Amino acid sequence: MGSTVSFLLLLFLSTINHISSESIIKLPSDNDISGGNRKVRADDNVVCDSWRLAAETNNAGAWNGVPARCVKFVAEYLTGERYRSDSEVIGKLASEFAKRVRLEGEGRDAWVFDIDETLLSNLPYYQDNGFGSVTFNETSFDDWVNVAEAPALAASLSLYKELQELGFKIFLLTGRSEHQRNATEANLLFAGYSNWERLILRGSSDQGKSATLYKSEKRAELVEEGYTIHGSSGDQWSDLWGYAVASRSFKLPNPMYYIP
Amino acid sequence: MGSTVSFLLLLFLSTINHISSESIIKLPSDNDISGGNRKVRADDNVVCDSWRLAAETNNAGAWNGVPARCVKFVAEYLTGERYRSDSEVIGKLASEFAKRVRLEGEGRDAWVFDIDETLLSNLPYYQDNGFGSVTFNETSFDDWVNVAEAPALAASLSLYKELQELGFKIFLLTGRSEHQRNATEANLLFAGYSNWERLILRGSSDQGKSATLYKSEKRAELVEEGYTIHGSSGDQWSDLWGYAVASRSFKLPNPMYYIP
Repeated sequence: MGSTVSFLLLLFLSTINHISSESIIKLPSDNDISGGNRKVRADDNVVCDSWRLAAETNNAGAWNGVPARCVKFVAEYLTGERYRSDSEVIGKLASEFAKRVRLEGEGRDAWVFDIDETLLSNLPYYQDNGFGSVTFNETSFDDWVNVAEAPALAASLSLYKELQELGFKIFLLTGRSEHQRNATEANLLFAGYSNWERLILRGSSDQGKSATLYKSEKRAELVEEGYTIHGSSGDQWSDLWGYAVASRSFKLPNPMYYIP
Repeated sequence: MGSTVSFLLLLFLSTINHISSESIIKLPSDNDISGGNRKVRADDNVVCDSWRLAAETNNAGAWNGVPARCVKFVAEYLTGERYRSDSEVIGKLASEFAKRVRLEGEGRDAWVFDIDETLLSNLPYYQDNGFGSVTFNETSFDDWVNVAEAPALAASLSLYKELQELGFKIFLLTGRSEHQRNATEANLLFAGYSNWERLILRGSSDQGKSATLYKSEKRAELVEEGYTIHGSSGDQWSDLWGYAVASRSFKLPNPMYYIP
């Protein structure tokens, strides 16, 4: 790694809760994303691909829905080879980084994974629910969580197993609530994950906190316990930013929803 | 904007200099980016598009060259409609944000722009120099800077003018050196920019600092002078991260080179 990179970083003061919160910043409407001074209406695939890039790089701010014009594009992206390829390349980069980490040993080398759209894919649910184009329905999503049969995101399952072989301790840090612990454990085992060090869910005192703040607090507790967080994988910037951040963070794609 | 989002953030301790520095992290080789367990070699366009996303989201770490396999892809991206569309959508999102900012008035509302690959496009230079696939040649790039005829990035020129009309003060913060001030001013005027508040270049005491540190220090000086940095536009994360960051940052695409 050569020089050490030290992160301080980004503390969201807002205490906005989960997906169902109102957005801080107005959504880019279809009008917002159509190219500036062009006379010809640009091709949806080009413009929507640009919207997706803007969302992934956090340029779109706190967007709260896929623009109507881009729902078909997002559906094709997620169900075609591009989503798989994007996830694989990120997994591969994470793996190459992990292999170069000099482990400190004594079981204190940590990697933090988010769960939804990171270890587990809720694509079967979103496929039946408009691919992020309709308002998030907490009740129906909770029903889906309780079924506990979300498949693994293949690239993350490979990375997970490789990290365990390399000697990392795996921490799962999710925005799901404590009452979903049993269903979440069952689903993780169903999808092929095992032997994680700890599964951290939102307790009663974590409700109402932004994901960035909640996850930062939990990572800081790990650091206080003596763990070194070498890497972190998540599909949201709020999984990765804040404080007590990992040496390297890996942002998986998610063009369906944004969690502040 | 509703709630205020407050950034602290990320202080790189490394003191790595400009483009010509060695990378902190090993480059993803062609092998690194080929998909995990696939038997069939994936299509270059798909894999290279995934590499580009990884680079734009900072998942690729401090990469120091376009993978050989992706040079053709990058060239087509930059010279085709996608680069223009990506830049336009980001400019549009920045503009929508800017229009919603409640200005404090008294000439203290600031927007910070990077120059290279942000206000000015060096594409004509890189087109003749391998699109980021060959080692950066400081001498030939300096010659290009002195010609002072780099064109404007169209989406940034529109945004720049719009911000001025809205009442923002424009600060230009570049990794170029103080001895390039005249050529840089001439080029900016040539490309259609005018009436910036201040052009900040690297002085002798800034040499050897990482771009993140240098730019954070300069933004912090603006904040001390009483400016509110509402927005910032740059093609590198090191233009945008660190401390004294803007309320909203806009990352323009650049698949040719990475500056830490």
